Amino acid sequence: MKKTKIIISTKLFFSSLIFLISFLTLAQRDKLDVNDTKIIKEIFDESLTSRETYKLLDHLCNKIGHRLSGSSSASKAVEWTEMIMSKYNFDKVYKQNLYVPNWKRGEPEVAKIIGQKKELSVLALGMSVSTPKKGITAEVIEVQGIEDVEVLGREKIKGKIVFFNRPTDQRLISTGSAYGGAVDQRTSGPSIAAKYGAIAVVIRSVGTAFDDVPHTGVTRYKEGIKKIPAAALGVKSADRLELALKDNANVKLFIKMNCITLEDAPSHNVIGELIGNEFPDEIITVGGHLDSWDVGQGAHDDGAGCMQSIQVLNLFKKLGIKPKRTIRAVMFMNEENGARGGLKYAELAKDNNENHLIAIESDAGAFTPRGFGVTAQESTINKFRSWLPHFDMNTITYFKNGGGGVDINPLNRLLGTPTIGFVPDSQRMFDIHHSDNDTFDTVHPRELELGTASIASLIYLIDKYGL
Amino acid sequence: MKKTKIIISTKLFFSSLIFLISFLTLAQRDKLDVNDTKIIKEIFDESLTSRETYKLLDHLCNKIGHRLSGSSSASKAVEWTEMIMSKYNFDKVYKQNLYVPNWKRGEPEVAKIIGQKKELSVLALGMSVSTPKKGITAEVIEVQGIEDVEVLGREKIKGKIVFFNRPTDQRLISTGSAYGGAVDQRTSGPSIAAKYGAIAVVIRSVGTAFDDVPHTGVTRYKEGIKKIPAAALGVKSADRLELALKDNANVKLFIKMNCITLEDAPSHNVIGELIGNEFPDEIITVGGHLDSWDVGQGAHDDGAGCMQSIQVLNLFKKLGIKPKRTIRAVMFMNEENGARGGLKYAELAKDNNENHLIAIESDAGAFTPRGFGVTAQESTINKFRSWLPHFDMNTITYFKNGGGGVDINPLNRLLGTPTIGFVPDSQRMFDIHHSDNDTFDTVHPRELELGTASIASLIYLIDKYGL
Repeated sequence: MKKTKIIISTKLFFSSLIFLISFLTLAQRDKLDVNDTKIIKEIFDESLTSRETYKLLDHLCNKIGHRLSGSSSASKAVEWTEMIMSKYNFDKVYKQNLYVPNWKRGEPEVAKIIGQKKELSVLALGMSVSTPKKGITAEVIEVQGIEDVEVLGREKIKGKIVFFNRPTDQRLISTGSAYGGAVDQRTSGPSIAAKYGAIAVVIRSVGTAFDDVPHTGVTRYKEGIKKIPAAALGVKSADRLELALKDNANVKLFIKMNCITLEDAPSHNVIGELIGNEFPDEIITVGGHLDSWDVGQGAHDDGAGCMQSIQVLNLFKKLGIKPKRTIRAVMFMNEENGARGGLKYAELAKDNNENHLIAIESDAGAFTPRGFGVTAQESTINKFRSWLPHFDMNTITYFKNGGGGVDINPLNRLLGTPTIGFVPDSQRMFDIHHSDNDTFDTVHPRELELGTASIASLIYLIDKYGL
Repeated sequence: MKKTKIIISTKLFFSSLIFLISFLTLAQRDKLDVNDTKIIKEIFDESLTSRETYKLLDHLCNKIGHRLSGSSSASKAVEWTEMIMSKYNFDKVYKQNLYVPNWKRGEPEVAKIIGQKKELSVLALGMSVSTPKKGITAEVIEVQGIEDVEVLGREKIKGKIVFFNRPTDQRLISTGSAYGGAVDQRTSGPSIAAKYGAIAVVIRSVGTAFDDVPHTGVTRYKEGIKKIPAAALGVKSADRLELALKDNANVKLFIKMNCITLEDAPSHNVIGELIGNEFPDEIITVGGHLDSWDVGQGAHDDGAGCMQSIQVLNLFKKLGIKPKRTIRAVMFMNEENGARGGLKYAELAKDNNENHLIAIESDAGAFTPRGFGVTAQESTINKFRSWLPHFDMNTITYFKNGGGGVDINPLNRLLGTPTIGFVPDSQRMFDIHHSDNDTFDTVHPRELELGTASIASLIYLIDKYGL
C-alpha cells in the first residue's frame, strides 16, 4: 500500500514537472519575436536552396586542395578568399600579416616490418624531424600510453622505436572526446619517448575508423629534449605491427621519413567585415582555419568552417539584414601546426584596443548541427538557451557549458572575450580527420548548409539582443 | 524609460524561466535511478564496441542483397533472420505466413527523348504495368502536380505521357517531410493522369540529391481506372526532359518497360521473442521491414531497422537484462509494395487476443539518433520525456507528438496500440532511398549502433516502468 502511494506521488511529481516545463516552453515560444522567426526561416531557406557554402567549398577543395601553412596552396587560398569576400562586397576585406612554421613532408614515408614484404601505411606526424637518409631500423617496444614509457624507463626504451598503440575509445558518444583521450600519444608521446632514449616513435592513428588510412597531426617537441622522428600508422598497419610483436618480441621495424622544417614563412589571416550601424566598435567574430594538413583536401577540417563564416556575412547581405554590431569573418592561418593566426588576431585586437563582444569558431566538421558549446557567463548561456525554440529540433538542441576553438581561445585568454564552438554531429569526423579521406565528396550539402544557417541565426540573435 | 522597463521585465521573465527549467531538469536528473543509468550505459558501450548490428547488416546487404517481396532473396532473408535469432537463443523464434504481391521489374527500362542519342536514366515505379513490347512513343505534358492534371483536363492530357516534375522541397529541414510533400506525384499521379486519358506517366524522382540515379517506389492504381505504365526519371534526366520541352513543346518521349505482376507469393513475417518474467502476456514489439526495393541493397531501407530490432533482444540477453514483459523483434514482410506483413501481424494479434503494450518501428535510416515520434496518450509521452536525461545530448533529444510506421500502424488501427517511430538524422536518407545508392557502404557503424542502443534503452525503460 505504502509502495503504491510512493509510486503515485513520483508519477504526480513527474507529470506536474513535465506539464510545467511544457507550459513554460510554450510560454517561451510565444515570447519569440515573430520577426526573428521570419528572418531565421529566411536564413535557413536561403542556405538550403542556394547551397552557396557548398559551392565555395567545392572550389576550395577541388581547385586549391589541401593547404598546409607555408605552402603555395595556402597562399592561393588566402588570395582566393580575399577575392571572394571582395566580390561579395563586404564593407571591409583585409589581411593580417604573420609568420608561420614551414614544415614539409618531403618524399612519402616508408615503414616496414623487417621480414615482411608488404609495407605499412604510414604518415609522418606534423613538425616531425626526418630520419637519417638510410632510415632507422630498430627493435620496437609497444606501449599503451605515456605512463607506460615512464614505468618501463630508460633501460627498456633506449635505442628502440616506441610504438604507442592505445586505441581511440569507441564507447564515447562524442568522438571529439574519444580523440581527446587518445591524442596525447601523438602530441606528447615522441618527446616522452625521446627523454628515455627512444630513437623514433610510431603511433596507432588517432581516429575512429577501422581502415588503413593513416592520420597525421602535430607533435610537440619539448624544449631541451632531442627531437626524434615520429609517424602515425594506419589502424590496420598498427594491428599488423602488434601481431608481429606478439609473434616475435624482437622483430625490427624500418622507417624512413624525409621531412624538413624551413624558415618561418610569411602568411596571413584573411578578414571580411560587415560594419555595424549602431555599435560599429563592438565586434562579433566568426571563423574557421584556412590551413589544413598536407593530405586529403581539408574539407571538414576546416574548409567548411571558413566557407560557413564567409557565408554568414553573405547571408546577412543577401537577406538585407543590417547588423548593429560589426560582424567579422576570419580565415585563421596555421591552426594545425602552430596556431599562430589565432594568436596574432588576439594580439592585434589587444594592441588596437578592440572591443570583442564574442567569437564563434566552426572547426568540428560539416555535419548536421547538434548544439553549441559556450564559454561565457551563466546568464549569457541561459539567454542563448531561451533562443532554442528558434531552432528546429533536428538542428540546434543545446547550448552546453564550455566551448570555443583553437583560433579564438587566445581572444578569451588575452581579452576575456566569451567564445562559442559550433558542435555538429561527430560520428563521422574522426574517421577522416587529418587523413587522405578528408575530401569534399564526404561533405553533405544540406548538413553543411544547416551549419551555416545555425551559426548565422545565432549571430543574428546575438547582434540584436547582445549577451 | 517605459521601454527600458519592459526590456528589463522581459529579461527577468526569461531568466526566471530558464532558472526554473534548469532547476527542474536537474531535479529530474537527480530522480533517475542509478541502476538505470548503469544499464543504459552498458547498452551503449556494448553496441559501440561489439558493432554486432553492423556485422549483421553487412551479411544481409552483401551476402543476400536487395529483397523485393516474392523474390528468392526475400526468402533467403527470411531463412537467414530465423536462423540468426535461433542461434542467439531467443526464447521463441517463428514465422507468420502470408501472401505478398509478386511484381517483377523484368528487363531494365529504357527511356529516350526522340532526337536525342543519350538515354534517360529511368526506373519503373513499383507495381507499374508494362508498356507494350514495342514501347510507347508520345508527346509529353509537364505538370507540377495532381491539381495541374485536373485543371488541364482530358483535352490536353489525352494520348500523352504526363511528366510530373515538381521537385522535392529543399527548404524543409526534415527530409521526410520534404519527401512526403512530393510523393503524391508517384503514388497517385499515374491514376489521376489515366483518369484524364494519359497513356503513361514519368515523374521526377522523389529525393534530395541532384544526381541522375532514379528512385523507385510504389504507385497505387485506383480501382476502376485504367492502369498505365509509370516510371521515375533521375533528377538530371528530369532536367533534360524539362529543357527539351522548353526547346520544343511537341518533343516526343519513348519509354519501354517490362514489368509483370505474377500471382501472389507465399512469404513470412519472422519473429523472435524474449518472454517476460512478470507479465509475459504484455507484448512490446520492435521491428523493421525485411523486404526492400529491387535496387541497391535495402541497407537503410530497411535492413538497418531489422538488424537493430534483432540486436535489441540480443543486447538484453548479452547484458543479462531479464524483461518483465515479452519483447518481440519482428521482421515485417512487404512494407514497400503492399504492407501485407504489418496488416497480417495486427490481424493475428487481434484474432489471438494479444495484449500489445506498445510497438516501435525503425524505418527511417541508420543515421545518428535525434528523437522518437510517439502516438500515445499525452501522459505517456510526458513520461518518456522525463527519461530524456538518460540519453546523451548527441543522441535522443526529443519525444515528439505523433509517430509510428507503416508496419505497426495497423496495430494501432485494429487494437489501439500506441506506436513509436525512431527518428534518426534525416539529411542523407532521401539521397539514396529506393535507389541503387541504398547500399551498405553508406551506413556508418557508429550511427547505426547508436540507433540500436537508443531503441534498446527506451524499451528497457518502457519494460521496467510501463506507459
